[in-house]
Amino acid sequence: MNFEMGRVVVTEILACDILISDVSLLPLPDPNHFIEKGWLAIQGPEILALGKGDPPACAAKKRMDGAGCLVMPGLINAHLHAPMTLFRGLADDLPLKSWLEEHIFPAEGKWVSGEFVYWGTLLACAEMVRSGTTAFSDGYFFEDQAARAALQSGMRGLAAQGILDFPTPDSPSPAESIQRIKNYIRDYSGSELIKPAIFAHTVYTCSPNLLKECRSLAERHGVPLVTHLSESRSEIEEVMKKYGRRPVDHLENLGLLSSSLIACHCVWLTEEEMDLLARRKVRVVHNPESNMKLASGVAPVPDLLARGVAVGLGTDGCASNNNLDLFQEMDFAAKLHKVHRLDPTVMPSQTVLEMATLGGARVLGMEEEVGSLEAGKKADVIVLELNRPHLQPMYNPVSQLVYSATGADVRDVIIDGKLIMENRKLLTLNEEEILEHAKEWGRKISAKR
Amino acid sequence: MNFEMGRVVVTEILACDILISDVSLLPLPDPNHFIEKGWLAIQGPEILALGKGDPPACAAKKRMDGAGCLVMPGLINAHLHAPMTLFRGLADDLPLKSWLEEHIFPAEGKWVSGEFVYWGTLLACAEMVRSGTTAFSDGYFFEDQAARAALQSGMRGLAAQGILDFPTPDSPSPAESIQRIKNYIRDYSGSELIKPAIFAHTVYTCSPNLLKECRSLAERHGVPLVTHLSESRSEIEEVMKKYGRRPVDHLENLGLLSSSLIACHCVWLTEEEMDLLARRKVRVVHNPESNMKLASGVAPVPDLLARGVAVGLGTDGCASNNNLDLFQEMDFAAKLHKVHRLDPTVMPSQTVLEMATLGGARVLGMEEEVGSLEAGKKADVIVLELNRPHLQPMYNPVSQLVYSATGADVRDVIIDGKLIMENRKLLTLNEEEILEHAKEWGRKISAKR
Repeated sequence: MNFEMGRVVVTEILACDILISDVSLLPLPDPNHFIEKGWLAIQGPEILALGKGDPPACAAKKRMDGAGCLVMPGLINAHLHAPMTLFRGLADDLPLKSWLEEHIFPAEGKWVSGEFVYWGTLLACAEMVRSGTTAFSDGYFFEDQAARAALQSGMRGLAAQGILDFPTPDSPSPAESIQRIKNYIRDYSGSELIKPAIFAHTVYTCSPNLLKECRSLAERHGVPLVTHLSESRSEIEEVMKKYGRRPVDHLENLGLLSSSLIACHCVWLTEEEMDLLARRKVRVVHNPESNMKLASGVAPVPDLLARGVAVGLGTDGCASNNNLDLFQEMDFAAKLHKVHRLDPTVMPSQTVLEMATLGGARVLGMEEEVGSLEAGKKADVIVLELNRPHLQPMYNPVSQLVYSATGADVRDVIIDGKLIMENRKLLTLNEEEILEHAKEWGRKISAKR
Repeated sequence: MNFEMGRVVVTEILACDILISDVSLLPLPDPNHFIEKGWLAIQGPEILALGKGDPPACAAKKRMDGAGCLVMPGLINAHLHAPMTLFRGLADDLPLKSWLEEHIFPAEGKWVSGEFVYWGTLLACAEMVRSGTTAFSDGYFFEDQAARAALQSGMRGLAAQGILDFPTPDSPSPAESIQRIKNYIRDYSGSELIKPAIFAHTVYTCSPNLLKECRSLAERHGVPLVTHLSESRSEIEEVMKKYGRRPVDHLENLGLLSSSLIACHCVWLTEEEMDLLARRKVRVVHNPESNMKLASGVAPVPDLLARGVAVGLGTDGCASNNNLDLFQEMDFAAKLHKVHRLDPTVMPSQTVLEMATLGGARVLGMEEEVGSLEAGKKADVIVLELNRPHLQPMYNPVSQLVYSATGADVRDVIIDGKLIMENRKLLTLNEEEILEHAKEWGRKISAKR
């Protein structure tokens, strides 16, 4: 029996909480460590051991049959705006400015409330769990309600409270946003699964002083600072015009570039900017579907990865995607860069899969806990059914996951050692109630358009 | 009651074979004709009537409850190599030349047989039906076996027998390929659902004489001629070097550009070439995922559509995609052109949905029969479940289908008035047996790599 794959060498197992057997395993990050038939044991919130062949004889509180299935680390959605599920498909195929200013901002001003955020996040969690995502990094308003919903779902993640220079749905002024952030961090800093963070929207919607204040707050409380960075050409132009610097340079000047910063999008970067982001250990999130749908551009992800930058994969919000399926996002990530560079060898499937697992864990600052299946790591595990026409035959499990699978192939989800979905049934969330609320929000919003 | 939507106005229905009621309907091609709650009646192979509200009182042999579902035309996969499902994920992320010459061609030479084509096509049909595709245009070798498998599945389509200048898996010489084509057309020209066609691989693998012979054959028998055209830059260079003309010009010179020609890919086209394709009424198939994965380039689809060219959507084979899900293909098609042109308004969702339905029907020469839900048209109908977290709320059904849904949302499939999949169970195919054969082929091919 092979117990040496994890960090903790276990020679004997007497008991465990969950035992999955007769299953294929892709522990990652090394895709060559594929186990065609093996087992995985979970004790409390952690992976106890995993190995080849038949499991050791042991007392297991719950046994799961993995025949015809594959076990792998849960995927990590490193950037989204969860409550925007309630705006899914509200406005598409529009010029960016009109999309944002005539549709999304007005809809947010009119509809976003604590209740909206709570139900929207529940819907997002239901969708994420169903499609094999076990951890995420969210940024929005009324983030305490997002955290509340996420905790209810049993998911892991960062939930970042948003702030802008102008009145937001939850705060009439930046000063009140700051106070809200302080309260939020105080209330959630002890939370085990959902960690608080700050979401400073962009360099063009947050003043230099506000950005510096966010930086200080993040440093003082030891929480990450999330922002959108260099997403579109118009952002570069606007920031150049306003501050005489490009966005990256502007943030460097304000002292924001550090390992505490999670920079989302990073589409329009110069070589020097990429060097600087790498030097400052800024964490980056790639959102290919959103960048494509909004026609923002193609982020230089292969160049960032070559510089050793931690890059995660995100779906962005449902108004610009319009779903939260990271399996599909991987497919887009792998194919987009190939056609953009006219080179089929860039962004091979294992690079993309690592981005959606360990890469995302690095972005969330959780790479010691999740992102791969190793004894001693948290048990964030998903089970996919392989016995389906679109997943056979299987020559290469990594290729199959990136190019052929979708989130609909996920059968079971375990987070922090707890079963969250079993045989496609959500166990922590009342899906029927969530769908009813989602439809009701849809009806209300449609009626007043 | 609204009976006027179809081409045949029905004032009273006494009986029908299948009645789907309490369902949302998107009859297409006009996306504005969305019916939130309605019904659809099928008699024999045809749509008898459809309407708003409750169905008329009538005797129905089979009643289907459509609550929480959407009825729409089945999708049409306008270009694939069905048997290549058995090579799914065999070779990825490789330079095109090495992919084709070191992996795909040798694998085809070694493994492709009548049995391979039969089982690979059954697997493809199972995957297509599951993901809501009701008609397709295939091109490969031993095409009689592909047609045999497709007929068994109950699908509709074109099955084109392949020919090249050099020995192929089914014919030691082009002369024998020609004879095979003649026999194949003779055997299948009376077939109701699967129509024969000729697949002349490319202008660089078929000599001018061979192409002219294929053209004559196609004309004589009134069958379409399928080819790959201007797929990659290297093709353009090679053909220029060999014939002193670009591929489109070369085909024009040989008299091949006509409404009988189905030209797949069409990535590298000049303005003049697009004008010419439009003038000659050549039918075009766009394969965005394959073009992205192989880094072939981005086809000028918006410009072709602007010229009135009939453009369908295809997945291409599973060695370059690697699945046959047209819902995902629509998502790629919509997003790829936006980012390529840095314009979020190009390829709106309704354009893409039309490409995958009526556009595909035009390519197959079946636009009078399928591609939309109208009384008198063939009943190629799919039923999607909308009551899922990633499909709620729904502001715009077309957006939801293109940007949020996948083939896994399809619950029922009806082709030619016959139930092919009901509540996710395939009724015409033995899925278990097909999966066992697919795995066995995978094992054999893996063992000898």
